[in-house]
Amino acid sequence: MNFDDIIGTAAGIFTTIGVLPQIIKALKTQEVKDISPYMFIILCIGVGLWTVYGFIKSDWPIILTNGISFILNGIMLSILIMQKRKIK
Amino acid sequence: MNFDDIIGTAAGIFTTIGVLPQIIKALKTQEVKDISPYMFIILCIGVGLWTVYGFIKSDWPIILTNGISFILNGIMLSILIMQKRKIK
Repeated sequence: MNFDDIIGTAAGIFTTIGVLPQIIKALKTQEVKDISPYMFIILCIGVGLWTVYGFIKSDWPIILTNGISFILNGIMLSILIMQKRKIK
Repeated sequence: MNFDDIIGTAAGIFTTIGVLPQIIKALKTQEVKDISPYMFIILCIGVGLWTVYGFIKSDWPIILTNGISFILNGIMLSILIMQKRKIK
């Protein structure tokens, strides 16, 4: 692993775990009304496309981190949808 | 602009504009208590590092989109900090 891979992996770790505090907060408080679901819909599409980009470039830091990011953003989106249903 | 640049740019546009609906919602409602500030702190560090990664690889879609993403996440973080001060 060379220097650019280390920076790429560190970058990917931060952007990937970024959603975790929001997931934990939402699960703890069960309050999500201030959060925009559109943000997580758009982010899912975006990191999904980054994963494709990583495959085209055979760039593993991009593939791995955005793949996991896609799953985590998907979890957050699911929480938002489930909470919205509960309110109804 | 070839195919991988197009995918990279599309990916970057989505992950960049993803924060916008949240910024608009926060400015409209002035309610941010359900949003985790840690999410945006970590995302700022992450996209900042992605920008560095882009410079190392001379990869313009990565530099541009993550650079703008850094600014937008920074704006969202500022809103959160200002709202927190208002509550106090």
